[in-house]
Amino acid sequence: MPPLAITPDDIQAAAQRLLGIAHRTPVLRSHTLDQRTGATVFLKCENLQRMGAFKFRGAYNALAQFTPDQRRGGVIAFSSGNHAQAIALSARLLGMPSVIVMPQDSPAAKLAATREYQQGQPGSEVVLYDRYTQDREAIGARLAAERGMTLIPPYDHAHVMAGQGTAALELIQEVGALDLLLVCVGGGGLISGSAVAAHHASPGVEVVGVEPEAGNDTQQSQARGEIVHIDTPQTIADGAQTQHSGRLTFPVIQRLVSRIETVTDDHLLQTMRFFAERMKLVVEPTGCLGAAALLQGVVRAPGRRVGVILSGGNVDLARYGAYLQA
Amino acid sequence: MPPLAITPDDIQAAAQRLLGIAHRTPVLRSHTLDQRTGATVFLKCENLQRMGAFKFRGAYNALAQFTPDQRRGGVIAFSSGNHAQAIALSARLLGMPSVIVMPQDSPAAKLAATREYQQGQPGSEVVLYDRYTQDREAIGARLAAERGMTLIPPYDHAHVMAGQGTAALELIQEVGALDLLLVCVGGGGLISGSAVAAHHASPGVEVVGVEPEAGNDTQQSQARGEIVHIDTPQTIADGAQTQHSGRLTFPVIQRLVSRIETVTDDHLLQTMRFFAERMKLVVEPTGCLGAAALLQGVVRAPGRRVGVILSGGNVDLARYGAYLQA
Repeated sequence: MPPLAITPDDIQAAAQRLLGIAHRTPVLRSHTLDQRTGATVFLKCENLQRMGAFKFRGAYNALAQFTPDQRRGGVIAFSSGNHAQAIALSARLLGMPSVIVMPQDSPAAKLAATREYQQGQPGSEVVLYDRYTQDREAIGARLAAERGMTLIPPYDHAHVMAGQGTAALELIQEVGALDLLLVCVGGGGLISGSAVAAHHASPGVEVVGVEPEAGNDTQQSQARGEIVHIDTPQTIADGAQTQHSGRLTFPVIQRLVSRIETVTDDHLLQTMRFFAERMKLVVEPTGCLGAAALLQGVVRAPGRRVGVILSGGNVDLARYGAYLQA
Repeated sequence: MPPLAITPDDIQAAAQRLLGIAHRTPVLRSHTLDQRTGATVFLKCENLQRMGAFKFRGAYNALAQFTPDQRRGGVIAFSSGNHAQAIALSARLLGMPSVIVMPQDSPAAKLAATREYQQGQPGSEVVLYDRYTQDREAIGARLAAERGMTLIPPYDHAHVMAGQGTAALELIQEVGALDLLLVCVGGGGLISGSAVAAHHASPGVEVVGVEPEAGNDTQQSQARGEIVHIDTPQTIADGAQTQHSGRLTFPVIQRLVSRIETVTDDHLLQTMRFFAERMKLVVEPTGCLGAAALLQGVVRAPGRRVGVILSGGNVDLARYGAYLQA
């Protein structure tokens, strides 16, 4: 078998780089959740991570390994989501410029948040493009060439994957061995890192991925044995609207993830309300995927020790308010 | 000087009783909050406590000290708020009946939550009364006599006060000495326990209370040197709609609390949104009092180590959704 893109040592090294930089996020428990599921559930709260999502771990781990030349040039990323903010913040912390290429119709709050993270770092900017008439790849390639910047993709990159794995590592270090680990799946950065970390730190653990029903490309890919591409799915889980897994992440998923389950948007809404009402946590729709599978009985694990990664909490406040009232 | 109702030893003993029963709630930090205030701020998240508020600490500490006879009779409480749920849950955990006397026009969600906490405990019930035609004191006195139940008031009780003090004790044990501790003020149970704990664990700390502007009875009481009674104040901070401090809590406030500040409902709304957007935390209006004073510049503490107790997170979801959208 060819080697996977990352090893447990890579995740350990990432954890060292993140020490004192990333939050060691709390692991929370809920009697109600345990009662309803019959399991012993440990929630790793990456919604309480810096910039509000696990993405900070991978972005920082990647940028921290730039060469001096790469640092001078800075980093470029395409994203309108959590990856944008993770790169912007990590770049500023490491004192390098960042250019984030975002659609010009991105929500104003996301543009503002990204610019806020760039503040005080000369050479940093948000570059807007028209997604109907412009090719963002071409924009990125031109900027990278002109300014000597390095592109960091949102998931298909070994340093990003290794960084994401540190959340599962911390979880198991804190609570001990797990029987089952539930992780949301978009492009596969989080679950691939988590699977490598978990199988090493808790041998025998079962790692299960959860996708939105409308965007089950990874489930299809596992069934077919090759990466399946789908149209951009319609789901409130905007962090899992990816069209396909990565060339580096998919082999890890194939080898270390038992299976992929799916949940509906209605499941996600109910789970978001559960977290607000019973646990006082704001969790974004994508961040609810793993917990929704458990709460809605899609995954059953009575008597088992179950870890769930709540991946993020970045959701527009007005929209979130409407979700709670619906 | 006459002795105060509680000592640091009482709080230490309460902490022992709560060990493994109450959550040791996380202390969270926010770079944004530190930047905006110039302080180093530690947030003790009692919104993540069992049943969603610090009230569990005091209720459990009181009920755990019942005599065998008192246990057999059970506990009675008047409350439509967090005290009701704290008593209902604590009683069930200790295997005793609870009767919670609530207005018949209480929100359905609060009635349901209280009954859920009573589930499985024979003899427990919610007794409704008409607040316009019936005298709840008379109802309580009759039930207490008929059933041999013991009334536990929401704040003016030494065991309740000592239990509430354990949150501040845990905070200081975890983060070390503080320069300033900000605590919300209703009837004074939380701030009196906190003040005794903090002055012992962090000598020289300044303890400041925060009330809603519309309900500043404790501020008035401190100015007058005696307990001032006010009409039920109009404020979204429903946990601080008390009309007066207690006979046991006020002497502690007089001696150990430097001053009482006030914030407006608009401050509370802005702070609630800050917690949802930047920290992914659901904090009820009353729970925002201390942080609002800091965020809005009512209390300034540049360069100081500041503890803030986020007292609770119980807010009706539909109403909370509307607060976020407003």
